[in-house]
Amino acid sequence: MKHNYKHYIDQDPILKHKLLEGNFGIEKENARVDKNGKLALTPHPSVFGDKAKHPFITTDFSESQIEMITPPMPSINEAMGFLQTIHDIVSLELDKGEYLWPQSAPPILPKDEEIPIARYGDSDTSAEEYREMLSTIYGRKVQLISGVHFNFSFTEEWMERLYKASGEETSLNEFRNRLYMKLSRNFFRYRWLLIWLFGKSPAVHKTYIKDCIDRLPALEKDAYSFMEGTSVRSGVCGYRNKVNPILNFDSWEQYQKSVDDLVTDGSLKAKKELYTPLRLKSLGDEENVSYLEVRTLDLNPLKKTGISKRTLHAIHLFLLYCLFKEEEGTLDKDQQQVAYTNNDLASTFGLRKDVELITYAGAKKGIQLWADEIIEEMVTLLADYTSNNSDYQEALEYLSRLVTSPKGRIVHTLMAGIQKDGYIQFHMEKAKEYLKESRSKNFNFIGLEDMELSTQLVLREAVKRGVKFEVLDRAENFIRLKKADKTEYVQQATKTSLDTYSGILLMENKLLTKKVLEEANIRVPHGGHYTEEEKEKAILDFEIYKGKAIVIKPKSTNFGLGITILKENDSEKRYRKAIKMAFKEDKSILIEEFISGKEYRIFIINDEVVGILHRVPANVKGDGVSSIRDLVSEKNKDPLRGKGYRTPLEKIALGEAEKMFLETQGLNFETVPKEGEIIYLRENSNISTGGDSIDYTDDIPDSYKKIAVDAAKALKVKITGLDMMIDHIEEEANENNHAIIEMNFNPAIHIHCHPFVGKNRKLNEKILDALGF
Amino acid sequence: MKHNYKHYIDQDPILKHKLLEGNFGIEKENARVDKNGKLALTPHPSVFGDKAKHPFITTDFSESQIEMITPPMPSINEAMGFLQTIHDIVSLELDKGEYLWPQSAPPILPKDEEIPIARYGDSDTSAEEYREMLSTIYGRKVQLISGVHFNFSFTEEWMERLYKASGEETSLNEFRNRLYMKLSRNFFRYRWLLIWLFGKSPAVHKTYIKDCIDRLPALEKDAYSFMEGTSVRSGVCGYRNKVNPILNFDSWEQYQKSVDDLVTDGSLKAKKELYTPLRLKSLGDEENVSYLEVRTLDLNPLKKTGISKRTLHAIHLFLLYCLFKEEEGTLDKDQQQVAYTNNDLASTFGLRKDVELITYAGAKKGIQLWADEIIEEMVTLLADYTSNNSDYQEALEYLSRLVTSPKGRIVHTLMAGIQKDGYIQFHMEKAKEYLKESRSKNFNFIGLEDMELSTQLVLREAVKRGVKFEVLDRAENFIRLKKADKTEYVQQATKTSLDTYSGILLMENKLLTKKVLEEANIRVPHGGHYTEEEKEKAILDFEIYKGKAIVIKPKSTNFGLGITILKENDSEKRYRKAIKMAFKEDKSILIEEFISGKEYRIFIINDEVVGILHRVPANVKGDGVSSIRDLVSEKNKDPLRGKGYRTPLEKIALGEAEKMFLETQGLNFETVPKEGEIIYLRENSNISTGGDSIDYTDDIPDSYKKIAVDAAKALKVKITGLDMMIDHIEEEANENNHAIIEMNFNPAIHIHCHPFVGKNRKLNEKILDALGF
Repeated sequence: MKHNYKHYIDQDPILKHKLLEGNFGIEKENARVDKNGKLALTPHPSVFGDKAKHPFITTDFSESQIEMITPPMPSINEAMGFLQTIHDIVSLELDKGEYLWPQSAPPILPKDEEIPIARYGDSDTSAEEYREMLSTIYGRKVQLISGVHFNFSFTEEWMERLYKASGEETSLNEFRNRLYMKLSRNFFRYRWLLIWLFGKSPAVHKTYIKDCIDRLPALEKDAYSFMEGTSVRSGVCGYRNKVNPILNFDSWEQYQKSVDDLVTDGSLKAKKELYTPLRLKSLGDEENVSYLEVRTLDLNPLKKTGISKRTLHAIHLFLLYCLFKEEEGTLDKDQQQVAYTNNDLASTFGLRKDVELITYAGAKKGIQLWADEIIEEMVTLLADYTSNNSDYQEALEYLSRLVTSPKGRIVHTLMAGIQKDGYIQFHMEKAKEYLKESRSKNFNFIGLEDMELSTQLVLREAVKRGVKFEVLDRAENFIRLKKADKTEYVQQATKTSLDTYSGILLMENKLLTKKVLEEANIRVPHGGHYTEEEKEKAILDFEIYKGKAIVIKPKSTNFGLGITILKENDSEKRYRKAIKMAFKEDKSILIEEFISGKEYRIFIINDEVVGILHRVPANVKGDGVSSIRDLVSEKNKDPLRGKGYRTPLEKIALGEAEKMFLETQGLNFETVPKEGEIIYLRENSNISTGGDSIDYTDDIPDSYKKIAVDAAKALKVKITGLDMMIDHIEEEANENNHAIIEMNFNPAIHIHCHPFVGKNRKLNEKILDALGF
Repeated sequence: MKHNYKHYIDQDPILKHKLLEGNFGIEKENARVDKNGKLALTPHPSVFGDKAKHPFITTDFSESQIEMITPPMPSINEAMGFLQTIHDIVSLELDKGEYLWPQSAPPILPKDEEIPIARYGDSDTSAEEYREMLSTIYGRKVQLISGVHFNFSFTEEWMERLYKASGEETSLNEFRNRLYMKLSRNFFRYRWLLIWLFGKSPAVHKTYIKDCIDRLPALEKDAYSFMEGTSVRSGVCGYRNKVNPILNFDSWEQYQKSVDDLVTDGSLKAKKELYTPLRLKSLGDEENVSYLEVRTLDLNPLKKTGISKRTLHAIHLFLLYCLFKEEEGTLDKDQQQVAYTNNDLASTFGLRKDVELITYAGAKKGIQLWADEIIEEMVTLLADYTSNNSDYQEALEYLSRLVTSPKGRIVHTLMAGIQKDGYIQFHMEKAKEYLKESRSKNFNFIGLEDMELSTQLVLREAVKRGVKFEVLDRAENFIRLKKADKTEYVQQATKTSLDTYSGILLMENKLLTKKVLEEANIRVPHGGHYTEEEKEKAILDFEIYKGKAIVIKPKSTNFGLGITILKENDSEKRYRKAIKMAFKEDKSILIEEFISGKEYRIFIINDEVVGILHRVPANVKGDGVSSIRDLVSEKNKDPLRGKGYRTPLEKIALGEAEKMFLETQGLNFETVPKEGEIIYLRENSNISTGGDSIDYTDDIPDSYKKIAVDAAKALKVKITGLDMMIDHIEEEANENNHAIIEMNFNPAIHIHCHPFVGKNRKLNEKILDALGF
């Protein structure tokens, strides 16, 4: 019962409960292509900066092959969200007319020597030299094969607990190394199953390596295939070492030595040239296995991101199966040779029903039968742990289903599609569809959609720039950004280290904001503040306010309760009544002159106006034919509109409030407005009730912008969303035609990035600029 | 009816209501003396910095004469509070054995040439030269006469409103100048009344100017006096020009010209040499009268601050009387001569009943009769405006009472005291009493006692350093500090521009504070955070916590509800129950290891430990004789203890909570503890329930201080009050004997300034240092 990990785990409810936890990362490559499916020969998009230092977006062998890397995440779903976000960001930054090729097998390739290897400039000349060498050994075309790598490790907490539970008389490191070695040995033995089930590269384009094309039967006008194989990539025409490397799997130390020996004897040029289906990765000093890299996965052309969650959950279960399954003999040279053979049989003949593999006892066994046995054993060993997790339950069921009906494998759909449309057209249609999809909802961070949009936008920009981040407190939208030596903490996108605490407190205190602005000769609503003890004084001050339009309101307003607007000619009686009403809502009240004009939100970062917005109440524009109901329905189709603040705009509701507001205008939902007629469905202009955001950044005269910047300087604040009332934007600012009514220390940025009308002002970029990233 | 200000005011409820508003400032001088009443020949305390630039604390003629100046305040009470605070601050900074001489007439003087004139170093050589010149003209002894100046102006808002109400066809400036000129003319005519009523310098010491002494009758062994005079200072031996200056009072322009003429013809060396009883002061360009400076007031030796609120309210009313009273003829050269004569008669013979003054119609009138008439007229003219203000009502009553019974004048008390105890002894006893008083409650800012003590301490330090300040939001303890070009906003003493917004947010988020500290390898309580959805996980995690002492608590705690401490051997059942209880109080809970040791508050400013405090629950120490009740009563006598957080410590209550806690120990309020026995009356150590604060700044090993500083650095925060649990302060910090449990972004400073045991750590000074003042 040595290393009976399952036994120890089953003894301990916590080990059992946390078995499915781990650190999960995904790496994925896509070739860039033009609209005709030809490999793009353009440079890697410069917006991603130094590819040698970018943690998320880089190139692989070729300059034309983008590699996307997620950091280790606490769940597969989170890693998938991150990958999708990187994919979307990359897609949006491609040169016009370029696409991400969704298939592992390459697109239309030029001559070998015309394939550009990744350029590193002066930053890493050895990287270019290494690629030149690979070109010589393997040629460049094979290097264009892309795939998905799945990185996995158990959590350190879980590993330590298992180590203690095992009571083994060894070190934690030794224990961990032994565990991963056992898992790896079984992975080597049974990896053919993954290729058989999940292989998704059944064909290559005719421009692929001539030697391969020559021995493959023609599948279609532009493609060649083994016809019976699941994965060209995992087969003999795929991405592999010249000679199958034989290693020593007995221990981590011996494994490492055997790899070193291959380098020493010249079989490999470098350790990283070892193209095994599973890599044991060591961070830091190479003393321990840190995580496993599963490399057998082809891109799934039916998925935008090239991989499905379900498949990754299945792979994760397969890894656990490899940990639990008792080993058959020793993974010596002979077993390794058998494993290579089984690998090739699965990839090259995996679509045949009668293919027979070789067991590790040396017998022959039908692939279908063996697969059945393994999946049955997996269910037996693992079902207990998945009972509380529907993702893993589904993955187990999916595996069972696939084994029972291998016709359900995606590779069959691909073969059918390629045969119908041709290799290039089939994949290009997918590529175009995915680009459209990425563009249509270009504001979310997948997996973090519950966070504020402003924060999601900042995180998207962080990914683009290669700034690492952590979500420290999800509910509070509190993140940490890191790049090189720089660390910044940011809450809700705009609460940063740029502002001082006293600056924030000044903005928070509306009376003081006004006072400081007034001292700086900036126009604010005149007026007074009265506590309950000063009620008598407030009443006497009618003498000051009479003849002016004023607003009387509680100091803290809730839903507009207690607010009265008085006209120039209103009576003292109305004035007294308004004061009384305001005091009902708060212990102190404000009496302010009424400011006319339209309200503009002016966003300032570091003494610069970076966006100006005006908000308009929910409305539709008539076409002379459609009812208000239909116009609303049409307007709500905009992907910018959603529900619950996860999109830049909200859908217009057809509720009681809208009904009542239409009634005051003598209208209802069935009214058909005239062509061009604007119908408002709400009095208030909040975005949250379907209002429109209209960008005015380029339409407001500089004189107002200067005043806004002066206001920020007066308060010594760096990030602020300042609300200014302006009478007429056609007119330059003078002493009487505008006033600042508020300065917000936590203004939303997403409304400036995705306005209903106008440009994306990219405030997420500006904030990262300001923070020095 | 020209300039019938009263008429306009009575027509407008607001003018009427706000007549008593204004800007009020006080300037006051005191000679510094040694314990024997001899003029101190030491330099001005260096702690007050450059006397030429200090807005509140400077010197007058002599280096030995301190001048204290309040800024203009919106009420007399506030100006008085400010003055008292300056006075207290100055008193505490005097050299050991020095006192403030409380009498206008000088103390024991050395020879004229030994009196030090104020030294300005290189910063203002002309100031020294001017004083040298005054020495030559007047001698130095007369310059040692001290007094109180009262600065007054109407509010600008009120003045503008009156101007508009008057409808006068002139400019606002001209209107204002005319108003102040009229007021000044009447002040010149009737100022004798103030000298008669409020003169308080009836005698001089025998070391005073020989010419004077020679013509004065001996009052006592050490003093000389006119015997029948109220004010030596306002009389011929007082502080006045060589020749009584005759000016042109017809208009502000002519007045200025007449002063200039006196300088031109050599009668005055400079404008400021004009020692009239009322100065018309102009700020800025001299075009307008800005405020009035009343200079007729002697120091009141019976008051610590040298002046009473009641007297100032009376003077204010007298100024309004001067505004309203119809003028008798023209204040020409003859009237001015008469006014000088009346001034001298009141000061030199004011104690005689039969003294007769000269009316401005040229007749003789008994002083008592005339005073009666004026006060009666004042009551008639002003009673209406004071009806809502008890301070002014009392002042009017006081004036009436004084006129009816002049024996009630303070000068009589002074004469009696000097005759009984001698001039020096009488005043020195007062001086010593006042110093003791200033020392006993050395933490309040008088007039701002409703603000937090921490803010009051910062403001006291600001006054000491000559940093000007404004209270921007009193309820919020929000102040603005200004000195030279520097402006800082500070809320609650420790919310400043030193900290960034993100630093504050990190401290506010207790889970993130812990996370960041843990990453920096700083010891914090281990544990986990669980939301309601993670309840099951929390229960399973018993496996992790079992065998350890832990605290289970709601994330947000209210009055300790829902908190359970579990011992090492507590059962899973207790654990589950504790989780349930915690979730009753909040939607997420914390499970943390229980940290042993004593809690210390470590205060850090700019990466330096500036104070360490430990708090002990309310307690008394037995003497073997007194009951707990009596011991509490004795302990509560400490002036540091008060009620309602306005003192550094709170009085220990003898309430239900204390009674119950004593009962748990088998004690009651009447129990007599043994000598040296410590009896605790509370379980909690809060200062607010009578706890003691014990300073440990010098007793904690540096190893803990370094950890605290590292913690502040890890969060990049500049001001923090960090709570650390320490097992034994005799032992250096190691990995297990301490933990940081919280970092507060708004720590109180007053507990470190006035601890129950230990030194004043002067955090108010450190904060102003850190802010760069």
